[in-house]
Amino acid sequence: MHSFSIQEINTILSGELIGDTSKKITGLNQLKNATPNQITFIGSKKHTSHWKDSKACAAIVSENIKVEAKENQAVIKVKCADLAMAKLLGVFSPEPPVFEIEIHPTAVIHETATISKGAQIGANSYIGKNVNIAEGVIVYPNVSIFDDSEIGANTTIWSGTVIRERSIIGAHCIFHNNVSIGADGFGYRPSEDGRGLVKIPHIGNVVIGNYVEVGANSCIDRGKFSSTILGDGCKIDNLVQIGHNCVLGRCCIMAGSSGLAGSVTLGDGVIIGGSASINDHTTIHAGAKVGAGSGVVSDVPAGKTVLGYPACDSRDMLKQWVALRRLVHK
Amino acid sequence: MHSFSIQEINTILSGELIGDTSKKITGLNQLKNATPNQITFIGSKKHTSHWKDSKACAAIVSENIKVEAKENQAVIKVKCADLAMAKLLGVFSPEPPVFEIEIHPTAVIHETATISKGAQIGANSYIGKNVNIAEGVIVYPNVSIFDDSEIGANTTIWSGTVIRERSIIGAHCIFHNNVSIGADGFGYRPSEDGRGLVKIPHIGNVVIGNYVEVGANSCIDRGKFSSTILGDGCKIDNLVQIGHNCVLGRCCIMAGSSGLAGSVTLGDGVIIGGSASINDHTTIHAGAKVGAGSGVVSDVPAGKTVLGYPACDSRDMLKQWVALRRLVHK
Amino acid sequence: MHSFSIQEINTILSGELIGDTSKKITGLNQLKNATPNQITFIGSKKHTSHWKDSKACAAIVSENIKVEAKENQAVIKVKCADLAMAKLLGVFSPEPPVFEIEIHPTAVIHETATISKGAQIGANSYIGKNVNIAEGVIVYPNVSIFDDSEIGANTTIWSGTVIRERSIIGAHCIFHNNVSIGADGFGYRPSEDGRGLVKIPHIGNVVIGNYVEVGANSCIDRGKFSSTILGDGCKIDNLVQIGHNCVLGRCCIMAGSSGLAGSVTLGDGVIIGGSASINDHTTIHAGAKVGAGSGVVSDVPAGKTVLGYPACDSRDMLKQWVALRRLVHK
Repeated sequence: MHSFSIQEINTILSGELIGDTSKKITGLNQLKNATPNQITFIGSKKHTSHWKDSKACAAIVSENIKVEAKENQAVIKVKCADLAMAKLLGVFSPEPPVFEIEIHPTAVIHETATISKGAQIGANSYIGKNVNIAEGVIVYPNVSIFDDSEIGANTTIWSGTVIRERSIIGAHCIFHNNVSIGADGFGYRPSEDGRGLVKIPHIGNVVIGNYVEVGANSCIDRGKFSSTILGDGCKIDNLVQIGHNCVLGRCCIMAGSSGLAGSVTLGDGVIIGGSASINDHTTIHAGAKVGAGSGVVSDVPAGKTVLGYPACDSRDMLKQWVALRRLVHK
Repeated sequence: MHSFSIQEINTILSGELIGDTSKKITGLNQLKNATPNQITFIGSKKHTSHWKDSKACAAIVSENIKVEAKENQAVIKVKCADLAMAKLLGVFSPEPPVFEIEIHPTAVIHETATISKGAQIGANSYIGKNVNIAEGVIVYPNVSIFDDSEIGANTTIWSGTVIRERSIIGAHCIFHNNVSIGADGFGYRPSEDGRGLVKIPHIGNVVIGNYVEVGANSCIDRGKFSSTILGDGCKIDNLVQIGHNCVLGRCCIMAGSSGLAGSVTLGDGVIIGGSASINDHTTIHAGAKVGAGSGVVSDVPAGKTVLGYPACDSRDMLKQWVALRRLVHK
Repeated sequence: MHSFSIQEINTILSGELIGDTSKKITGLNQLKNATPNQITFIGSKKHTSHWKDSKACAAIVSENIKVEAKENQAVIKVKCADLAMAKLLGVFSPEPPVFEIEIHPTAVIHETATISKGAQIGANSYIGKNVNIAEGVIVYPNVSIFDDSEIGANTTIWSGTVIRERSIIGAHCIFHNNVSIGADGFGYRPSEDGRGLVKIPHIGNVVIGNYVEVGANSCIDRGKFSSTILGDGCKIDNLVQIGHNCVLGRCCIMAGSSGLAGSVTLGDGVIIGGSASINDHTTIHAGAKVGAGSGVVSDVPAGKTVLGYPACDSRDMLKQWVALRRLVHK
């Protein structure tokens, strides 16, 4: 287990140390749950009152919050306690599973694939024809990557994930378990006799930027003619559906179980709440937010927050909900 | 195929046999679909009228229901016909797939992992460093279990399931296909320059009790500091999302495609309907029920049934729906 | 890359060629995005105005739409431009990943399984006891197929898919990545002492017709006594849940993240919109449509379109939404 003095922690965070503690710090935890060898954090004024009862040996505090050091319980002032906490969580992270062999002998790798120096391929994984794996990539066991795909430097791919042919994946991405990238889009036409359905082939692919994270069991389908695209820094939670030909800008967030039908466009920084769904061919402009559980059926202007089903301006929807309750309780 | 006399079935169920049948019983089925070699069951008075036309050679009947034996068609009285049916389904279950070799030679097992006597590990599965597999565990082919995880006795893990590092799984659990246990929680902070998102490392784990069942393609994320916890006897359906730091009490039920955002607490015996979603940091107290398709945004008291989006008392929501329809049809 | 003359394309489509082009055609694309070596298509009058600015060297046009050839830019008249486009997408499709070895030596195949001539089994896949794989079947790497299952001719199974014991799969089907077929249905009874839940064994199976497609990470559970059934030509999108004992007629469509609880019946040609969910024991009759995001709690007559939660006649629901908005904006 890692262990640090309060001075070492202060140096890591470039903070201002007030008071002192003789305790060795072995972890971090919330104000109420922290034990004497853990450090805690206070990022909001409403939590300051819990500091006096906290057993933590130290607290990381945002600079605009007033909190005093106690006996043998120090305070570290930082610009933003939340960011400092994220940094410390990294410091206290256990090591991820290690590979004792860079390329496991049970992995099946096509002779035309390129595995860069320092990339690691886990047991029983499959790497197809002409796949290009950049340096620092980690492919955990039981992953399948198909022909002509490219995986950028330092990207991590967890077990069960399948990356279909011709996918282009950026650097520093994380794909959690059982993700599906690049399956056929969902498109059919009634057959000429009207009695069946004709499958529309999808000959496009998926293109994913840098620093993108895709949660467990999420799906991103390939485009019909061209590409389904996720911009740099997009963060996708578990069980999310992204249909064919969707285009996501930079740093979009999609929470768990949400979904985009085909050809949806998200501007930069769009946030989609959990279980929300967006109709096909809809555009949600930069910085807009869609509330959890909403169903969006028309375009959303930049910066706007929408809510409900069918989704409209969030304040308006809250008023509608109040009005509906009043019909019953008047 | 298994085959039993009516006396043998009666002994298995500890019931009261009325009438007789010479038929050999080879299976069980619903009243309307049963064939002459099948036994049926009547657990509710509303179904008794179908008994006179049923071809079943016998019926299992709850003790409070009046049903008479017919010629060569017996009746077995039991306390609860539904429980007796569940028991008989077990009796008539085909054997699960068997392993001819306890530990398949293609499984990749780290030398520090402990595989107890009688545990079975299927083809092409991966077992990481220091993993502890108790007796009677069945790991089907193509499963991945990562470092320092513990799997309790007699737990069954189906193909495609991935259990990430440091997960603690109880005894007698079932994980269906392609489940994801212990992936990173979904948490980011805006970066200091406001232009990107900083990943919050999740250093916690997942702790699952005994007799828990997790359906196909469901996801349970690890905690941020501490553990995401499922109590004994929880039953989770397919495609369910359970976010980081959720805590579920005993015997909670979550139906298909439902989801809990981060830090949701469910008391004992909570029931979440299909496709329902629960906002983060919400507590649903013991015995409460959430109707299918609902969106819960605030705490739910013990024993209460809520419905709708945003969810409120179910009778109240039904009245709101009626009132809304009347606006149009007055 | 494939390349065709306009005459060759015209022959493939059995169309009527008007005008000519000397360009070699190497792909197809939408009117606005097509480059000079691509062919485009016009299936609706509202798009005809974009033809004059399109760089495409040719357009495929439905016979009822007036569009004229331009200099070195030909027109091919066909009965239905959309169907012709689907056909051409097939012509321009890159080859799917090829197998250099029909049955990969790392696949684990039980000695009692039957692999027909010309079937292909990928690396690290598992084929159980008595499984029957018909001719032309493609099983990609890391697939698991359990005992006594049957896979019909020319069916394709992508990586990560798990097919549980006794499943019967038709011909010409496609299973995308990480699909789960035949896991236990979700059924429990309170235990006699009221303190726990008793699992109801599911001894049925899954039966799937011909030309069925199942999207990535979707789940189809086995029946309790009998079978969960999908009729010929059903098309199921990603992350879809189909519960135990559901019966789908011919050519039903279920869009992404939608779900059927247990024992739902869909007539022929039913269309379920994205993220919609259907209560257990509900029947949706032939040709009915359920709007995206809807929650269906009662039977739907043939041919009807329902919408909303709880779902009702779509025009009625639209009126309710208008009435609700008017409560606020009057």
